[in-house]
Amino acid sequence: MTGTLVVVGLGPGDQRYLTADADDALRGAEAVYGYGPYLQRVPIHPGQVHYPSDNREEARRAAAAIRHAVRGANVAIVSGGDPGVFAMAAAVCEAIDTGPEEWRRLDVAFVPGITAMLAVAAGIGAPLGHDFCAISLSDNLKPWPLIEQRLDAAAGAGFVIALYNPVSRARPWQFRNAIERLGRHLPPTTPVIFGRAVGREDEQINVVTLDAADAANADMATLVIVGSRDTRVIARPGRHPLVYTPRAAAEVSA
Amino acid sequence: MTGTLVVVGLGPGDQRYLTADADDALRGAEAVYGYGPYLQRVPIHPGQVHYPSDNREEARRAAAAIRHAVRGANVAIVSGGDPGVFAMAAAVCEAIDTGPEEWRRLDVAFVPGITAMLAVAAGIGAPLGHDFCAISLSDNLKPWPLIEQRLDAAAGAGFVIALYNPVSRARPWQFRNAIERLGRHLPPTTPVIFGRAVGREDEQINVVTLDAADAANADMATLVIVGSRDTRVIARPGRHPLVYTPRAAAEVSA
Repeated sequence: MTGTLVVVGLGPGDQRYLTADADDALRGAEAVYGYGPYLQRVPIHPGQVHYPSDNREEARRAAAAIRHAVRGANVAIVSGGDPGVFAMAAAVCEAIDTGPEEWRRLDVAFVPGITAMLAVAAGIGAPLGHDFCAISLSDNLKPWPLIEQRLDAAAGAGFVIALYNPVSRARPWQFRNAIERLGRHLPPTTPVIFGRAVGREDEQINVVTLDAADAANADMATLVIVGSRDTRVIARPGRHPLVYTPRAAAEVSA
Repeated sequence: MTGTLVVVGLGPGDQRYLTADADDALRGAEAVYGYGPYLQRVPIHPGQVHYPSDNREEARRAAAAIRHAVRGANVAIVSGGDPGVFAMAAAVCEAIDTGPEEWRRLDVAFVPGITAMLAVAAGIGAPLGHDFCAISLSDNLKPWPLIEQRLDAAAGAGFVIALYNPVSRARPWQFRNAIERLGRHLPPTTPVIFGRAVGREDEQINVVTLDAADAANADMATLVIVGSRDTRVIARPGRHPLVYTPRAAAEVSA
């Protein structure tokens, strides 16, 4: 007898970005695992037990939830944003890939959520309106030269770039280094968007230019979007500007 | 006096991917504009009028909705998936950028939705678990050499690649050309995911290898995800395989 495991995206911030499917999945779970602050956003349904864990515990959390489900329970793991974007879905797959054979028989499902870059983009217009990419600046799990290679490739080919995990206490210099790197490909006036605590009451979205993009604007709750050469800013009287990348692109960049 | 315009993402398929915020925005609208098939997914609330239009009418639809809102109504425009990803949000921004000065005074907002690549990824595991990009293969709005440049840059630097608009009747050869291009950078065994009608009853998700990826598997309702060198497939007895890209990447590619 085995139960089920569902990996659920909460979207960023409060309940407003939760989908109907995610809400159903959470209601149906006997046990819910997750990083403490995300788990606090989930109401505890009758008969349901919550298992909070620490931020750096993805692999251990995934294994604990899988074991619980294999024993016969309906288990959920929550992720902020989308579980498939730099989050728990890959950790669960890694655990199944490297775990006991019986884990492959488990009924496992994934429920998508609004990932941070979509919420930040919606808060300011349509900066991801054309080809774009998502890069995690965390070098816990990959070497920094690989991150630099990807920044070069993306900016050089005209992608708008969403930067996840832009800074952390352990990595104070990375963001500055990344911005400097992007400046080799992009004009100093390129729009850069800092979205902090999006979907929460203290949400803040600021637009600056690349030459003024400072690590001091970012923390672990920040998502940064760096425009392409095509990204435009619309100034508006009495309103925040709109930033967008047009649907048409005319030229091959150098 | 002006009203409001809200650009709302419906997510893919039926109501299960609709967020609470999107649902609220649709209930509050007096007029709803959109591509006919998307609009059919929205219940008509009392006193609400729906204005369906054709697929290729984005710019005209955006202008009509803006004019309606500027006259004082609460107007919504719907997009399938996320409005900020190859969809209506950029069309609305373009219209405001190039339209009459008074359009800049309009109260305009964007509500994000689950974009197709997140839903397809969730349907098969976590293929977008590491750095990835989104490219539209439509060359209606950009030259094909630019698409090739971006495919080269993305595959060469190890991004997983989501291909939007992979084929259309007007572009029978593009998908084959793109796959051939990606084959210069990636092994023939690279996993390729075809997600069709995701979130609908007739949803289909298939995994093939790059050397077997055929335009015949794709149509306008298909989203394709091409893995990186790191993307892995987990075979499972009696279940569909899981496809994921590990959170860690070890090497800089050539």
